Amino acid sequence: MTSLVKQSLGVINVGLAQFAETVADVGGTATQLEWSPPALGDHKAGMALARLTNHPAIEKANTVAFSAFLATSPRLRGVGTAGTMLPNMGARTILHAGPPVEWAHMCGPMRGAIVGAILYEGWARDAAAAGDLAGSGEISYQPCHHHSAVGPMAGIISPSMPLWVVDNPVTGACAFSNFNEGLGKALRFGAYGDDVLARLKWIETTLSPAMGAALETLDGIELKPLIAQALIMGDEVHNRNAAASGLLLRRLASALVRADLPAEDLAQVLDFIAGNEHFFLNISMASCKLMLDAAHGVAGSSMVTAMSRNGVEFGIRVSGLGDRWFTTPAGEIDGLYFAGYDSADAARDLGDSSITETAGFGGFSMAAAPAIVKFVGGKPDDATANSKRMRHITLGESDTFQLPALNFRGSPCGIDCRKVVDTGIEPVINTGIAHREAGIGQIGAGLTRAPLDCFVQALTEFDVQLNQR
Amino acid sequence: MTSLVKQSLGVINVGLAQFAETVADVGGTATQLEWSPPALGDHKAGMALARLTNHPAIEKANTVAFSAFLATSPRLRGVGTAGTMLPNMGARTILHAGPPVEWAHMCGPMRGAIVGAILYEGWARDAAAAGDLAGSGEISYQPCHHHSAVGPMAGIISPSMPLWVVDNPVTGACAFSNFNEGLGKALRFGAYGDDVLARLKWIETTLSPAMGAALETLDGIELKPLIAQALIMGDEVHNRNAAASGLLLRRLASALVRADLPAEDLAQVLDFIAGNEHFFLNISMASCKLMLDAAHGVAGSSMVTAMSRNGVEFGIRVSGLGDRWFTTPAGEIDGLYFAGYDSADAARDLGDSSITETAGFGGFSMAAAPAIVKFVGGKPDDATANSKRMRHITLGESDTFQLPALNFRGSPCGIDCRKVVDTGIEPVINTGIAHREAGIGQIGAGLTRAPLDCFVQALTEFDVQLNQR
Repeated sequence: MTSLVKQSLGVINVGLAQFAETVADVGGTATQLEWSPPALGDHKAGMALARLTNHPAIEKANTVAFSAFLATSPRLRGVGTAGTMLPNMGARTILHAGPPVEWAHMCGPMRGAIVGAILYEGWARDAAAAGDLAGSGEISYQPCHHHSAVGPMAGIISPSMPLWVVDNPVTGACAFSNFNEGLGKALRFGAYGDDVLARLKWIETTLSPAMGAALETLDGIELKPLIAQALIMGDEVHNRNAAASGLLLRRLASALVRADLPAEDLAQVLDFIAGNEHFFLNISMASCKLMLDAAHGVAGSSMVTAMSRNGVEFGIRVSGLGDRWFTTPAGEIDGLYFAGYDSADAARDLGDSSITETAGFGGFSMAAAPAIVKFVGGKPDDATANSKRMRHITLGESDTFQLPALNFRGSPCGIDCRKVVDTGIEPVINTGIAHREAGIGQIGAGLTRAPLDCFVQALTEFDVQLNQR
Repeated sequence: MTSLVKQSLGVINVGLAQFAETVADVGGTATQLEWSPPALGDHKAGMALARLTNHPAIEKANTVAFSAFLATSPRLRGVGTAGTMLPNMGARTILHAGPPVEWAHMCGPMRGAIVGAILYEGWARDAAAAGDLAGSGEISYQPCHHHSAVGPMAGIISPSMPLWVVDNPVTGACAFSNFNEGLGKALRFGAYGDDVLARLKWIETTLSPAMGAALETLDGIELKPLIAQALIMGDEVHNRNAAASGLLLRRLASALVRADLPAEDLAQVLDFIAGNEHFFLNISMASCKLMLDAAHGVAGSSMVTAMSRNGVEFGIRVSGLGDRWFTTPAGEIDGLYFAGYDSADAARDLGDSSITETAGFGGFSMAAAPAIVKFVGGKPDDATANSKRMRHITLGESDTFQLPALNFRGSPCGIDCRKVVDTGIEPVINTGIAHREAGIGQIGAGLTRAPLDCFVQALTEFDVQLNQR
């Protein structure tokens, strides 16, 4: 002991950094190891984690689920109207983003978008009447996710709205998304002015039929090669879709010409796509939904198959835990705001678009998109660091989607809810920010994280099902 | 001295690494500094360099030249036929890439392309007769560069060929380039089969008029924003133009529709552009030529305003040294070959496309395009290192063109021939590789360097003009 005291101090400190700082203050050398206890110290979750880690049934199920995810090749098949394409959607039904939520609890942008959808459908003659109808109990509200569909931000889909149809040519499975309206005032951010509704009508009557005709002549478009190419070109196909939208336009242009549309319609359609760098977002989302649905429902799998937000709650679904949502209050967003707005104006985290992160894009593929930091904040190095960090919570890396800045390693994908709880690393999400009031629109973009609590709940349920029955 | 010998040896070694290795071998510590003598030890050049470094007249002239380069905003103005657009081009004249070269000395691909151009013009009825005419002395051969024009690889332009017209709206200055035919068998690689000639005719009769009509309705297209966006999307606008070509198509699509072309022509035009990721290359080259011509002819400026190769010689021009070319034998290319070919099949360095590196793109902007390494070889880190290394030989960085991977710093541009000689760092060039025989085409792509000797010659001439008259 005496000799130890006489030696100069060399310390490795695990966990709280203050201890290392104290050593350094008195002239010693301390190496600080970043570490936090599993489940951030939640004893019950930690015990569940211990029982579930390396559990053979889970490992096996995850291999099945992850392989099914990787093996799915989405194809942009065509377009169709929600009321026709979604057999279980009732007549007076409106679909929304995120886990289930009733009108009384909805956030401003979602309410605004619903008012807009009611006006769009002609179910009410003005906004006031639409608001009354919305809360009357006559409208059924259901998550898009319950119909194999996804919608960005408010994610509102009403029966007359056109949908993209993305299919799996091998299995015949389909996933759906609505059309992207462009930035600024748009239904998905809760805006419902006449210009917003007129654009939605033009999408229904001109854009969607044109897309349908072009896709018919092309026999669809394979989406994996297109998305892989977009990642090489600086997109993460969530908040940056500039390359993917351009690649899609490139594929569609001559087919649109051959579809024999009136010239002015054709020119408008081309201008609309050319003027909207987010045009591909909804197709990206439907692709992710299709790939993840292929991994859903594998008994024992801890792979996360959906992460979504309704502006009030954040929810996840897990492959082996059926259709149940594990929810917690939706978080705030650390972002860059458009001129004139700040965080006090912001709605909470909102939208199905985090399906892209669930599939390994968006925040998980930020290394592909250094320019995204100009939209969501930070530096290019942060973007790369986020992709590297996400490797700690995923089952593997994509065999198709490469990140050039990481020497072409695959994008990290297949979130394992055990790994999230074990490391305390919450999935990072790139997202837009809506104004918290109805009718205003987007006010910024930024980064948020999927709350740990959802993953702890899912893990606990797993433990009950596998170990405690 | 005795005490020195008793101490353990600590050495800083400058230059040849062997000395440091010897120290290390006997147990000492040696820090190796990378250093080489100016002008790689060429005494005469080193003395000239000493007289020209920090020379006030040169510093001032370089500021003028570099500012003029930065201030130039190229616009894609329209199209026109070479014979009409280039007033000093005679009737039986063929323009070629690189510094001047006569038929007797030309490389295989250039000869092949000239045979093709003669057939295309209808000056001979078959390839044999065209070859005879080519060497008869009846055809005048002149560098594209002598007509404000640039052409990739063989760079052959004959009077009937359509050209892109890029102008400076402020000064009215113009630069020109031919149209890109796509990869594989193409005139620029020396192929002259019927398919090659038929495509050139289609470019003349269908594509070029369509482009002209679309650009007319758009009143031209500003190219700096488009190129800046392409760099953010993974292009270096020399060997990778996937994003730029897509962005151009996006800008042109609706204008083409409104130009009222026959539907099948329009569809073919859109398919041709969509199918050629190098479509933008020639426009990129003309933009670079325009920006660099703005910097040319500033008395006393050591800024390099052209680097080009004719397959036999590599040549450079310098702003303050008039229209003189400083030439040396063209180098070989360190590249990736298409299946079935190797370096023994390769022509030497060829083409005006190194005008892009002269303007800070291509090899200088490789950090923007990690995916380029799949085309030219190496790893993404090499791409970034090349861009960093080029900073040592340039006058500055672009105020417009940013490299995301280098935290959005500007692309290094404005090569100072003094700095090249001083550091011995030769400008890096990304390039295609043509087969050395006429009529075959492209066989690979890779990296090469502008030979130091050209820069030493230019420096020596400067020294004569400024210090020794």
